[in-house]
Amino acid sequence: MTFTHTVRPRYAEVDMQGVVFNAHWLTYFDEACTRYFASLGFDPKVTFFEGGTFDVMVVKATLEWKGPAGFEDEVAISVRADRIGDKSFDIRFSASVEGRHVCEGVITYVSVKPGTKETRSIPAVLRSGLEPSLEREPSL
Amino acid sequence: MTFTHTVRPRYAEVDMQGVVFNAHWLTYFDEACTRYFASLGFDPKVTFFEGGTFDVMVVKATLEWKGPAGFEDEVAISVRADRIGDKSFDIRFSASVEGRHVCEGVITYVSVKPGTKETRSIPAVLRSGLEPSLEREPSL
Amino acid sequence: MTFTHTVRPRYAEVDMQGVVFNAHWLTYFDEACTRYFASLGFDPKVTFFEGGTFDVMVVKATLEWKGPAGFEDEVAISVRADRIGDKSFDIRFSASVEGRHVCEGVITYVSVKPGTKETRSIPAVLRSGLEPSLEREPSL
Amino acid sequence: MTFTHTVRPRYAEVDMQGVVFNAHWLTYFDEACTRYFASLGFDPKVTFFEGGTFDVMVVKATLEWKGPAGFEDEVAISVRADRIGDKSFDIRFSASVEGRHVCEGVITYVSVKPGTKETRSIPAVLRSGLEPSLEREPSL
Repeated sequence: MTFTHTVRPRYAEVDMQGVVFNAHWLTYFDEACTRYFASLGFDPKVTFFEGGTFDVMVVKATLEWKGPAGFEDEVAISVRADRIGDKSFDIRFSASVEGRHVCEGVITYVSVKPGTKETRSIPAVLRSGLEPSLEREPSL
Repeated sequence: MTFTHTVRPRYAEVDMQGVVFNAHWLTYFDEACTRYFASLGFDPKVTFFEGGTFDVMVVKATLEWKGPAGFEDEVAISVRADRIGDKSFDIRFSASVEGRHVCEGVITYVSVKPGTKETRSIPAVLRSGLEPSLEREPSL
Repeated sequence: MTFTHTVRPRYAEVDMQGVVFNAHWLTYFDEACTRYFASLGFDPKVTFFEGGTFDVMVVKATLEWKGPAGFEDEVAISVRADRIGDKSFDIRFSASVEGRHVCEGVITYVSVKPGTKETRSIPAVLRSGLEPSLEREPSL
Repeated sequence: MTFTHTVRPRYAEVDMQGVVFNAHWLTYFDEACTRYFASLGFDPKVTFFEGGTFDVMVVKATLEWKGPAGFEDEVAISVRADRIGDKSFDIRFSASVEGRHVCEGVITYVSVKPGTKETRSIPAVLRSGLEPSLEREPSL
């Protein structure tokens, strides 16, 4: 089952072309990821503010826009793991408005020791949280 | 009855002091005002994007911070009319976190002809929407 | 002599009305204040990041818009002290585009012990930096 | 010769980890691209606001972070064409702080008829502006 987070673009986030300015998508995806982690049982305040069982750094992001999203649209962002390595993992974000695909993003997070920039293996508790959302080839 | 809109500050909106950076409060209040207008029956997309029965320009804003709000806080913003003149009105925003008052704002909006900067009297339909929220001296 | 900082609004900061969205003015004034403090000899990185001889919290802000500023405008923001009390002071920001007044702001800062929210008297070194910009009644 | 634009991250743009929040890099690169176009002789206000000889839409962006950039850093962003197709082109942004590489971005722009979302071939005047910055294999 895929986790979905909904965002309604603010007036301030829409540019003169009448669409959400591109940079805000990274903020929307960050918010969606925070809620995804919360849905896995990781309290965001504890995890990212007070120093919890894991922490991550964003090292890469790829975004592709498929169509416009604007003021007052209800943007549904589905979130799932796309790759889980030893020290890093990819989260795939797929945003749509009323079933129309508007933006796709893949963000690579590196696992770090909380409060540091020291990379380390993804903790087992995080790995087992992410795994169920990994899309797999259908087995025969 | 006072209209209330809830905002959860994003990670991106919290600064190095661990609190919501001051400018974002104007964005939160703008979002709260949009939802307030929606609650009065004015569709925001029609009103502010396609040109509806009224339009407004912000001409003044006063904000006072009473305490910190940070990442993952549930910020409840109450919204009500504070003054209704001929061509302008004030909206009062009162933000709290778990009952703790964190920020107070008063924003002055000037009524303009939709799609222009030409001021005009507040349309009757907007005036009658705002009036019920005006705080009044208790009658004897 | 008044300190002036120049800002060129970004495409991302201009809304569907073709003007800088109101919240960004607090960010512009914050940037202008940082540069003003730098001009007084207070290195911003040391002062606001590493813990310097003073620190401040914003407790109040009043903004008045006089006219539009938009994409690619050169916004000149003059900065000066407007009031210097014992524990707090006001900075006045006056923004213009090609001599046309577009936005006026007054922000109240409270002096705090660096790294804390504990108020304290404005340090002498900061007070003497601010004082020359205080506007005074012309003497006879 | 490569065009370079310098950005100094604002206090508001730095997050609780003490680094520029990832989304702001797309805003920095957008600002750098605007200045790059200006350096090629395309007035940004005319081009992107009033409808000039060309207009573009962002359809893809890839960012890779190499190291931290924070408050008061001088971020030098070099800008050059990385690919020029028939209807789209890629711009490569390379950001460094004191010679230290901090962020790399490639953004794909699609040429559209000004004021529309209708794609069309890159106008000759834009193509000839972009070409000199295209990196080429060294000739023997």
